[in-house]
Amino acid sequence: MTNKLNLGQTVSLLKGVTDVHILCHDYPDGDTLGSAVGLYFILEQLGARSKIVCNKEIPDKFLDMFNGTKTTEFEPKYVISLDIADEKLFGSELSKYVGKVDLCIDHHMSNTGYAKNSLIEGTAATAEIITMLARELKVEVTTLMADALFTGITTDTGCFKYSNVTPQTHELAAYLIEQGAKAADINCVMFDTKSRARIDAEQIIMANMKYYFNNRCAITYITKAELKRICATEDDLDGLAALPRQIEGVKVGVYIRERESNKDFNTYKISLRTQGEVDASKICAKFSGGGHKCAAGCEIKGSLEEIIGIITNEIEPQVI
Amino acid sequence: MTNKLNLGQTVSLLKGVTDVHILCHDYPDGDTLGSAVGLYFILEQLGARSKIVCNKEIPDKFLDMFNGTKTTEFEPKYVISLDIADEKLFGSELSKYVGKVDLCIDHHMSNTGYAKNSLIEGTAATAEIITMLARELKVEVTTLMADALFTGITTDTGCFKYSNVTPQTHELAAYLIEQGAKAADINCVMFDTKSRARIDAEQIIMANMKYYFNNRCAITYITKAELKRICATEDDLDGLAALPRQIEGVKVGVYIRERESNKDFNTYKISLRTQGEVDASKICAKFSGGGHKCAAGCEIKGSLEEIIGIITNEIEPQVI
Repeated sequence: MTNKLNLGQTVSLLKGVTDVHILCHDYPDGDTLGSAVGLYFILEQLGARSKIVCNKEIPDKFLDMFNGTKTTEFEPKYVISLDIADEKLFGSELSKYVGKVDLCIDHHMSNTGYAKNSLIEGTAATAEIITMLARELKVEVTTLMADALFTGITTDTGCFKYSNVTPQTHELAAYLIEQGAKAADINCVMFDTKSRARIDAEQIIMANMKYYFNNRCAITYITKAELKRICATEDDLDGLAALPRQIEGVKVGVYIRERESNKDFNTYKISLRTQGEVDASKICAKFSGGGHKCAAGCEIKGSLEEIIGIITNEIEPQVI
Repeated sequence: MTNKLNLGQTVSLLKGVTDVHILCHDYPDGDTLGSAVGLYFILEQLGARSKIVCNKEIPDKFLDMFNGTKTTEFEPKYVISLDIADEKLFGSELSKYVGKVDLCIDHHMSNTGYAKNSLIEGTAATAEIITMLARELKVEVTTLMADALFTGITTDTGCFKYSNVTPQTHELAAYLIEQGAKAADINCVMFDTKSRARIDAEQIIMANMKYYFNNRCAITYITKAELKRICATEDDLDGLAALPRQIEGVKVGVYIRERESNKDFNTYKISLRTQGEVDASKICAKFSGGGHKCAAGCEIKGSLEEIIGIITNEIEPQVI
């Protein structure tokens, strides 16, 4: 059982740590990385050295955020995980930290409580919690910190678009801009820049789009051959699953991506996005998947035609 | 010469008005309409009847915002224009108001000062100014008002993405969400819903994209025949001009749209979007156009090939 901390208790605890390894989740995003960079600079001001560790390579668009951080090697005396709901999300290179996390700071209410101590707040982003900690600790919020924490908040809220945004999210954004966060520049890099591979992927997805049930359901796919042809990275594909549901009138959007294939079977990752009353997580649960009401996923083996047949059978009663 | 007011003076003035016509600009957007609905409800609470008038039809996505407003006909005793920098932007049906505006509330610092009284603040949206007026007037900010004013702010900032966003913009957004603005629902309608015609238009634009000068310039176009085929409205095309510049590495993005054509000549509207040091307004000024450093436009007569030739000649020295 984890020891649940509040903000004040975490503040006290952070004042006493030293030689910290800060863990980010696998396939790192703006929130886990922005929170890590923010915490790195907080600890630096508290006199503690730290190192940010991550299983996967950091996507190019986040690299500028690491200006001013060092990557000195040392054995950790304290391990903090950020934005990681479950040890499964550490990734293979971070498996040595399993069972050894001293403090977890996270905004996922589904956090499994794997750490010795946990600060879990249901904010839009973990970076919101780090921003509050910085204020409570009365450290100087530098431009580098403000940029990193703003990146965490804006990426986890889709630029303040999603339903997880609260008045506090906007208030903390206002605070970080006051501290010098280059909000517009960051938003431009995160949301207004598309790689050529991304544009190619969007073209393929739109060309493969099919409509069902009086246009209330839109299904599209991208194959491994197509992905290989356009040289797409994971980062290029981020958020594509949202496209079918964005089409006017579509209640259920399905994005199918080919994963593994061999002579016996193909595996496809299915991402569902819904609006209104249709529960995406219930549909995906039938295929051992899960997620939220409006966004869920699962994996199915079979041919593309079979999978579209199976999925449309499940969707049909929900939209007609 | 207009009489320049501050917030406090405008508050005093609004307390004394009656029988108000509220003018929106032609091709109405979320800010002019959201500000108008917000002011309508403010005036209602102050005991003054008002009517919102606009030259062009209101796009479907803004219609819900008008719930609770009435369109009773009456002769105005007072005329207020919102978000209108110049009388030229009234549109033909509102020409009878030219020279007759008692109060202009606007966030364009380029406002021509056509009104008897003007409250001009360099905020991200006119809806920010209306929100501040509502607070100063101590009227009850209802959910309907909060929704309308939030719509104004979020649409004029590209969902808090643009460089016009200040800490105050986020603070006022936090305030409006506290008052009940359904931020995520509004953002979903404004930013995450695309009409079929919009998707078709994006497909055409991406298919017509050509790259120049080592991919630092991207130029695309859409013809009248293509627009007719996909049955696109103005609203479907809003923001398309931004797409070429969003491509990674592109410093100058050009979007060309065919306007009028007859047997003697074709007219094309050119929209430039730039980043970094390239000044879009300087390039467009050569063709009697104008705008901002990073976003400007102009009209050129000729064939598509001629226009691309002319434009690339102007862009070349800026990007090589």
